[in-house]
Amino acid sequence: MRIVFVDLYFSVSVVSNSRLTIIQSIYTGIPRDAQITRIEFEGPEIAVYVKNPSFISGNMDVVKKIAKEIKKRIVIKADSSIRKDEKETTEIIKNIVPQEAGVTDIKFDEDLGEVLIKAKRPGLVIGKGGTIQQRIFLETFWRPVIVREPPIKSKTVESIITHIYNETEYRSKILKTFGERIHREVIYKDKYVRITALGAFQEIGRSAVLVETQESRVLLDTGVNPSVSFGERMYPKLDIDQLRLDDLDAVVVTHAHLDHCGMVPYLFKYGYEGPVYVTPPTRDVMALMQLDLLDVAEKEGRPLPYSAKEVRKELLHTITLDYEEVTDIAPDIRLTFYNAGHILGSAMAHLHIGDGLHNVVYTGDFKYARTRLLDRATSEFPKVDTLIMETTYGAQVQTSREESEEELVRVIQNTINRGGKVLIPVLAVGRGQEMMLVINDAMKNKKIPEVPVYVTGLFDEVTAIHTAYPEWLSREVRDSILYKDENPFVSDVFKRIEGYREDIAQGEPSIILATSGMLNGGPAVEFFKALAPDPRNSIVFVSYQAEGTLGRKVRDGASEVQVINRDGRVENITIRMEKYAIDGFSGHSDRRQLLNFLRDLTPKPKNIVLNHGEASSIRAFMRIIENPREKERLGIKNSNIYAPSILDSLRVT
Amino acid sequence: MRIVFVDLYFSVSVVSNSRLTIIQSIYTGIPRDAQITRIEFEGPEIAVYVKNPSFISGNMDVVKKIAKEIKKRIVIKADSSIRKDEKETTEIIKNIVPQEAGVTDIKFDEDLGEVLIKAKRPGLVIGKGGTIQQRIFLETFWRPVIVREPPIKSKTVESIITHIYNETEYRSKILKTFGERIHREVIYKDKYVRITALGAFQEIGRSAVLVETQESRVLLDTGVNPSVSFGERMYPKLDIDQLRLDDLDAVVVTHAHLDHCGMVPYLFKYGYEGPVYVTPPTRDVMALMQLDLLDVAEKEGRPLPYSAKEVRKELLHTITLDYEEVTDIAPDIRLTFYNAGHILGSAMAHLHIGDGLHNVVYTGDFKYARTRLLDRATSEFPKVDTLIMETTYGAQVQTSREESEEELVRVIQNTINRGGKVLIPVLAVGRGQEMMLVINDAMKNKKIPEVPVYVTGLFDEVTAIHTAYPEWLSREVRDSILYKDENPFVSDVFKRIEGYREDIAQGEPSIILATSGMLNGGPAVEFFKALAPDPRNSIVFVSYQAEGTLGRKVRDGASEVQVINRDGRVENITIRMEKYAIDGFSGHSDRRQLLNFLRDLTPKPKNIVLNHGEASSIRAFMRIIENPREKERLGIKNSNIYAPSILDSLRVT
Repeated sequence: MRIVFVDLYFSVSVVSNSRLTIIQSIYTGIPRDAQITRIEFEGPEIAVYVKNPSFISGNMDVVKKIAKEIKKRIVIKADSSIRKDEKETTEIIKNIVPQEAGVTDIKFDEDLGEVLIKAKRPGLVIGKGGTIQQRIFLETFWRPVIVREPPIKSKTVESIITHIYNETEYRSKILKTFGERIHREVIYKDKYVRITALGAFQEIGRSAVLVETQESRVLLDTGVNPSVSFGERMYPKLDIDQLRLDDLDAVVVTHAHLDHCGMVPYLFKYGYEGPVYVTPPTRDVMALMQLDLLDVAEKEGRPLPYSAKEVRKELLHTITLDYEEVTDIAPDIRLTFYNAGHILGSAMAHLHIGDGLHNVVYTGDFKYARTRLLDRATSEFPKVDTLIMETTYGAQVQTSREESEEELVRVIQNTINRGGKVLIPVLAVGRGQEMMLVINDAMKNKKIPEVPVYVTGLFDEVTAIHTAYPEWLSREVRDSILYKDENPFVSDVFKRIEGYREDIAQGEPSIILATSGMLNGGPAVEFFKALAPDPRNSIVFVSYQAEGTLGRKVRDGASEVQVINRDGRVENITIRMEKYAIDGFSGHSDRRQLLNFLRDLTPKPKNIVLNHGEASSIRAFMRIIENPREKERLGIKNSNIYAPSILDSLRVT
Repeated sequence: MRIVFVDLYFSVSVVSNSRLTIIQSIYTGIPRDAQITRIEFEGPEIAVYVKNPSFISGNMDVVKKIAKEIKKRIVIKADSSIRKDEKETTEIIKNIVPQEAGVTDIKFDEDLGEVLIKAKRPGLVIGKGGTIQQRIFLETFWRPVIVREPPIKSKTVESIITHIYNETEYRSKILKTFGERIHREVIYKDKYVRITALGAFQEIGRSAVLVETQESRVLLDTGVNPSVSFGERMYPKLDIDQLRLDDLDAVVVTHAHLDHCGMVPYLFKYGYEGPVYVTPPTRDVMALMQLDLLDVAEKEGRPLPYSAKEVRKELLHTITLDYEEVTDIAPDIRLTFYNAGHILGSAMAHLHIGDGLHNVVYTGDFKYARTRLLDRATSEFPKVDTLIMETTYGAQVQTSREESEEELVRVIQNTINRGGKVLIPVLAVGRGQEMMLVINDAMKNKKIPEVPVYVTGLFDEVTAIHTAYPEWLSREVRDSILYKDENPFVSDVFKRIEGYREDIAQGEPSIILATSGMLNGGPAVEFFKALAPDPRNSIVFVSYQAEGTLGRKVRDGASEVQVINRDGRVENITIRMEKYAIDGFSGHSDRRQLLNFLRDLTPKPKNIVLNHGEASSIRAFMRIIENPREKERLGIKNSNIYAPSILDSLRVT
């Protein structure tokens, strides 16, 4: 049991924005002829079911006004009694939506009154200013949910949608549970905000931060430590008294790398029943990465921390949010995601707590610079009191993007010219897609010879997911895909292959992009073994190589390495290929970018909490920003700077 | 629910010193002819019930050896079937114990097999080297528990013992529950120690520190904030997720001032069912102070945080420990109390955690200097890794004791000589008794004239409790009472009176010691009102006067004050009496004493955590001890120094 100081000093129960008030505002605000039949709290959204949906034609402003007043997300849905049947609805949709939209699938969620429309050009299903979307609603009385059919078929995206639409009853039930919990009464008078370091403090890996108020608890990220393969240092410190899964209001995942999301299904295994907030791309990539974690662990004979069952449950508990969409996740906490520029769908999480009491920004991993794939991370927020910021490269300056690209082009040119092949081991998410954009551009601009570019491994499935979410990519790529109909990921430059292919390894000059990025598995290792002995070939490392990996040994200059074969035999590989490491493609901010972020950050925070960095890196960065002149220059001279260790808690207000 | 990382990495269950091992060691170690009938875990003690207790005559060494080996407290008790009946036992005791012991009461606890013997000279019941005590056991088969009948009758001591002996069945039941819990299996592999500031950090009042390991949780002190009379700043931050009363292993109370113990009954109100560890004098004074808190709140019409019922429950859950008695309080925590020199029974709490993993010393309030009443606080511990230390006077240097005593003598002399009376308002616990010792000594040594010294108010009952515990007083006082049979508290110098007496206020020159110490209630106020207008009289403040109290106004030089009468009318009091404030009698260490304590502290801690001081005081003290030269001089140059705020947590290992 927990002590609740209510009996002693509690006088008036605070019913701020409680459900009653919300329901009253809606009933009094919405015209009577809408004929409201019920109001449901479906997760963070408030669904108003009406018998006469056509009232919205002239009244959308009224609904928006109420939503603004009560600071809630209101959606109008039709009462199930008036909805057209599925067959008729399908016909109507096919009639209304133009042929060119390329509708590929229509699915119904009876419980939530929604119809999913999958289309190659979702913009044409929405229509200018949402006109077609609204017509579908008013003619079928189903609320359309429109998703993109990716040009590269993604098994992941497909099976996630199928899974969710197979479980509509469960999902509508839990959304109502979430909704009631989010809008519960605020009972405490005392206000505080406390953050607790559970993982990725004074280290990299197993990210997790607990944010507590008197009312609510939110877990930001729940990752694994990829550099540890067993034991309790592999996971964040989740097994503490402070973290009771039945009291946890929300899990927020900032991006799909396993060191940020790899342990979320574990929470479900232990009985967590609440929501997981992510961006839509993060949901899909996250599930893919988690299932891959299980695959790899199984192959290596390690115990599995959870099973696919929990990944499926997690998916049903996921609530997706777009960037800058303000959402209630607890009675006193609003979450908003902002672009973090790190990988597809990566977000900074902004928590607005206690109606202005305190604002926390948790950056997750972020890139404060434009990349080809993504726009630069946000540095402007409505309010910031406490900033929790990653410090991976707090001590390092990277080569500039321009120089890095030039170097890559030079290596490719030289290698191809002498009849060699270029192997670029890539991480599944982020760097691989960035390389595709760089190479596609260089080839289109004739900077490198037109040779086949093979892409293989897990990262190809991730690329497919990228093509489902062009709106989440950098302005250039987005515009190119949406307005010029030029999708670099489906460029004819790229040849997708399955795994390793001997004929390619023995064939003509080519460029091979393959996972894994540190040569610790996947087709990249097979290609490496085949290409290593030939001095005409090159290997180019574009991402971090962890201690102990094959990639690290090769990069550090080994002339011979031993590799264990699939059949368990040791093989000696002589390395005569040329080796390059280019550090300017990182998805993390380097020291200069971290400092620029602080300089540009608006407004300036009272507290800066450094995490996600080796102790030495955090120390070095702290020394820089605590220097009085630098503090002045960055405009943070009144900010307290903290570098907590795991299990430290900090009361921030 | 809480996550328990057992399934993943747990291989072998650690059964270190578990109950099974303990029982086996006892069965194999104790001679067969003892005829063990059962072994019970009674709180921290392990009671071995035997049918042939006489085996111990030649075998006490064997028992001691086993106790040392398994590091547990073993007591030998007789099986209930062989115990003599109560009447016969009483006769035997009266025959064995010499007349001069002054036995006043004999009580039986059938459930624990103990007989309580109350005597004016308990030493004579124990006998040289415990011989008489052992004879009682071997002839009656009841285990004697011997307590002192205080020369000044104490209602508190009496009613506590009666209460406990009325509830022997309940008490023996819960002791077994405690015992099983204390000796439960250690299941976690990971080890950490974490302390959380719940009260009296960056402030004085509402002391509370939570110490957590993966296994156990211990709450050190649970006080009220005496300078706040309502609202949640009155209590420590007990209402947090981290503190679940059903998971709490122990509450440790360092001394009986309400800012350290005032909220303990509140824990029971909210369902705490565990033990409270205190020294024997702390138990008695604590209960008295808590009941007084209820009295005062009731008189002032404030809501009561708990009722007398919870104080009674707390008493049944109390386990008393002597100084330097090492005791298991959780499977991975051993508690030892050390003298703190602050008030009667005050203790520093030493926690030995995880078999040497970490050692925490929590000083509570302490005086690192000899007073008349108490010996100087301890500064030597077997091990210290983290020191949590009070800093009340981190910024102040007090007048020396000698000068303070001289000044008091001078004031008394002058006042008496001019025909006046001296009023000394005293706190109920500590300062009042110290004043008695100073005055008694001065009068015996003819330093001040022989006038009546009146003692009145709550503090007189506290004085009575002092007389029950001479062993806990300073060496001088103890020796004087135990060996010279001179008890200064019962000296004929003192006249005990009930409340206020007009005839004394209007009578001959005298000295009046009365509570409360800050003139916010009690007979001190009545005497003040009567004595204030006469310039021949004096008032001497010997303790801290809080902001807003009548004492503070008078001390600060007001020439007229308004007092609200018992019948609600406002009375104007003109102050013509002389006013003195003497600061050298404090029970807290001043700055120099705090520094001396750190200098003498053995061994030196890795972490020093400052608490129990106003923010300014802590800041000032921190500045001093962080000065490199001072750090060097104190031998703490490798210690980290922390000054957390409430709700901060610190992982200390």
